[in-house]
Amino acid sequence: MHSHRIVRGAVSALLVASALQGLSPAAAKPPAPVVAAIQADEAAAVKRLQQWIALPTIANMGVNHAEGAAHMRQLALDAGFQQGEVIKTAGVPAVFATLDAGAPTTLGVYFMYDVKHYDPKEWNSPPLEARLVDRPGEGKAIVGRGAVNQKGPETAFLAAVKAFKDSGTKLPVNLVLVAEGEEEIGSPNFPQALASPAVQAALGKAAGVFIPGASQSSTGSVSTELGAKGVIEVQLISSGEKWGRGPNKDVHSSLMASVDNPAWRLVKALNTLVEDDGFTPAIDGYFENVRPLTAREKQIIAEEVAAGDEADIKKSLGIRTWAKDENFLTSSIRLAQRPTVNIQGLVSGYTGPGGKTVLPGRAEAKMDLRLVPNMTYDEAVTKLKAHLAKRGFSDIEVVVSGGYSPTEVAEDSVMIRAAQATLNGAGIENTLSARAAGSWPGVMFTGAPLKLPALGFGAGRGGGAHAPNEWFLVDSTNPKVAGMAEQSEIYADFLYEVAKAAAK
Amino acid sequence: MHSHRIVRGAVSALLVASALQGLSPAAAKPPAPVVAAIQADEAAAVKRLQQWIALPTIANMGVNHAEGAAHMRQLALDAGFQQGEVIKTAGVPAVFATLDAGAPTTLGVYFMYDVKHYDPKEWNSPPLEARLVDRPGEGKAIVGRGAVNQKGPETAFLAAVKAFKDSGTKLPVNLVLVAEGEEEIGSPNFPQALASPAVQAALGKAAGVFIPGASQSSTGSVSTELGAKGVIEVQLISSGEKWGRGPNKDVHSSLMASVDNPAWRLVKALNTLVEDDGFTPAIDGYFENVRPLTAREKQIIAEEVAAGDEADIKKSLGIRTWAKDENFLTSSIRLAQRPTVNIQGLVSGYTGPGGKTVLPGRAEAKMDLRLVPNMTYDEAVTKLKAHLAKRGFSDIEVVVSGGYSPTEVAEDSVMIRAAQATLNGAGIENTLSARAAGSWPGVMFTGAPLKLPALGFGAGRGGGAHAPNEWFLVDSTNPKVAGMAEQSEIYADFLYEVAKAAAK
Repeated sequence: MHSHRIVRGAVSALLVASALQGLSPAAAKPPAPVVAAIQADEAAAVKRLQQWIALPTIANMGVNHAEGAAHMRQLALDAGFQQGEVIKTAGVPAVFATLDAGAPTTLGVYFMYDVKHYDPKEWNSPPLEARLVDRPGEGKAIVGRGAVNQKGPETAFLAAVKAFKDSGTKLPVNLVLVAEGEEEIGSPNFPQALASPAVQAALGKAAGVFIPGASQSSTGSVSTELGAKGVIEVQLISSGEKWGRGPNKDVHSSLMASVDNPAWRLVKALNTLVEDDGFTPAIDGYFENVRPLTAREKQIIAEEVAAGDEADIKKSLGIRTWAKDENFLTSSIRLAQRPTVNIQGLVSGYTGPGGKTVLPGRAEAKMDLRLVPNMTYDEAVTKLKAHLAKRGFSDIEVVVSGGYSPTEVAEDSVMIRAAQATLNGAGIENTLSARAAGSWPGVMFTGAPLKLPALGFGAGRGGGAHAPNEWFLVDSTNPKVAGMAEQSEIYADFLYEVAKAAAK
Repeated sequence: MHSHRIVRGAVSALLVASALQGLSPAAAKPPAPVVAAIQADEAAAVKRLQQWIALPTIANMGVNHAEGAAHMRQLALDAGFQQGEVIKTAGVPAVFATLDAGAPTTLGVYFMYDVKHYDPKEWNSPPLEARLVDRPGEGKAIVGRGAVNQKGPETAFLAAVKAFKDSGTKLPVNLVLVAEGEEEIGSPNFPQALASPAVQAALGKAAGVFIPGASQSSTGSVSTELGAKGVIEVQLISSGEKWGRGPNKDVHSSLMASVDNPAWRLVKALNTLVEDDGFTPAIDGYFENVRPLTAREKQIIAEEVAAGDEADIKKSLGIRTWAKDENFLTSSIRLAQRPTVNIQGLVSGYTGPGGKTVLPGRAEAKMDLRLVPNMTYDEAVTKLKAHLAKRGFSDIEVVVSGGYSPTEVAEDSVMIRAAQATLNGAGIENTLSARAAGSWPGVMFTGAPLKLPALGFGAGRGGGAHAPNEWFLVDSTNPKVAGMAEQSEIYADFLYEVAKAAAK
């Protein structure tokens, strides 16, 4: 849900330069036995991905919580992690695994093993069958829920790790894996798992943390993000029950003449949260701690914009104009710079075709707030509640279902340097992105107490995260785009680059 | 949907006096052969009702439009109507049937043969099986969709008509039946059927029109309504497509930083439709043509209120306070007096459990406006659109899915006099209601060009219209409440009372 890969799909990838360089076969490859082992394992790796997709973990629907965690642990052990344990939380369990290679450098790896829910009716092939489907002009892709977000890239990374074991090659770094099953609902309980002393001790030794991702555009380019917005998932609920006015259930609509309506109450409360333009956040003090973009960040955005195709982006988003009729550059700066107050959905009373004469007892707005540095999760939740209370809306329930603060990673950090070296070594065109407009829980690593550089990294390609027909490219016919085995090779190389960058 | 019976269930029935008089066996009964024929037909009438319930016509779901009309026509012919025809409209067909008894007086009868949609999962017995179920303290009831709204009372009326045929008794009035299959969506095409010259000519001879209804309270009392509010069913739809801003589909929520959101647009538009109290209509000029209640109407309301149990009504509605903290009398006057602007439902973007990071391409508010004399349907639709346009919301689609103007019937009209005489003759406690807060399309008869007195009338009892487990009492164990055969007897008597009242 919050994964930056979606936003990359939506905007950043489209902003990326489309210079055509090939994957250079010569540069910076991992050792030949590792490459050979990856290739020998290719079909088995695809099978592992298909089996994993067949076992969906869905956090907010109680689907395969324990089973998904057990499977995640076993996948790590099979790849060569020496120990793995399931860590219970108040929600979906986490998994913690380590691989001690006796190396001077340790790398943290963050996985999510949950997936977004899905409606099989909307899919062209069954979402859990993970069928191999031809994508004209791209190659063969696995279609299934979780294919790209995030089981495909994670399987490619585990295949790289396994290849070291299979080929008897010593890993250049030690690995610490932390995996959660609640990323799609805003990681509400993952901090609890991370706080375990053993996890803290293990991650405390890491030079940085990364999450595997298939981040190549259709032309093969990759955008490396220097941070991402934070997010708060929140539902505002107006009800006769909490309000003490209006009905505690749906009643006949004629009663509107003498009975209060919780749906109107919600409209009046929502109306205060954005300015009259229906766009600018109006929560009291919301912009107080917003750090303006640096000159360097603006420069990076300008470079992205110069290389992007505005018309194509607008077409893919189905929009005709940016908010406030701003030009592409101004709007792109806003996209990175601005915190948001978004309505994801509205649900109240009758929601079927046409109308039905009820006065609803309950109304709910599903919202998300996106936060930029130096806003924090706690600050924004507090300000939202205070804003509503100040205007007499204390009866509106504020249900925070997940979220976290923004994350940032320095351009000169070990992780960014290692990512750039790996991509350059593989001949993959790559640019920087100042800040993803989407979110991922990198702050759990970049924030206190760990304060580690953290990023998403990976070659390969996929799409349709959270949508029907989610796909992940397994065999690529475009020489600029990595298939699954090539991704594993690039991950293997990345381990060497992390060791190198950390040694500098 | 708009049927006054619901509101009677919700409020008016609860406002009604609970004096206990028995159904007087002596007074004003129809001829013995008619009564005998009704009783002989009793089991068959129940069966006819069950068969009718098994064939639901649902206007806005395309269910049994033609089949429902054909069945309606056949029911009329079987009861003794000499001719019956299905009248095509732009929507669900209407049915027109006549019975010429050679009488000096003609009575118009209005039927609805459609029902509200239903979710079988919410029912204790299958909604189309029309099972006979014991209601403790009340008797045996048929449970099924349409049982009370309106097939039960209509079946009881047709059984009365049939009894004249079966017993070879001449009817005291000629009958003109007009039946529609779109009452539940606001009768959008019924005026078209009524406008047919043959229908106008037939109804033009009528002394008045009535719709059968089971309107006894649990204590047996009946409230006779002197009118009902009009209603407009309307959906307000905000979309990127029509707006030209925001996306034309759901996109990733992070884009809220630089893309407009149609859900916010809808909130801003809705916000202008009621005052800051979230209750008082704020559509420009909305109250302009509101006729104040007369002294007589206020007197009737005061009598209803004096006899009502406020605590019991509040409990049944699930409310703790009336809007604006008014007392029972003031709020009851408001209930009759005030036009409304109601939100029935809200639906936009993600509506499942928790949240989902989308920025929706579309948002819809389902609304109804209730109109009082002398407001009209056309006036209110025009004012709503003008109000939105004046504030720059012309992009918000105003989809009017049905509705009609308010209806009124004079206390000294043939129909009210006949109704009161029938109820008094049967020993049924009855009071007047100044105006139903709900709606029924009586204006199609009371308005130009027909200008006939029209009302809902009937003994008997049921509940749960539009809700799960809708029921209609067939055998009553309470001597104050009519079972189905007794209702038919009262309808038979009503025909004589109409003839008498018209002759005066």
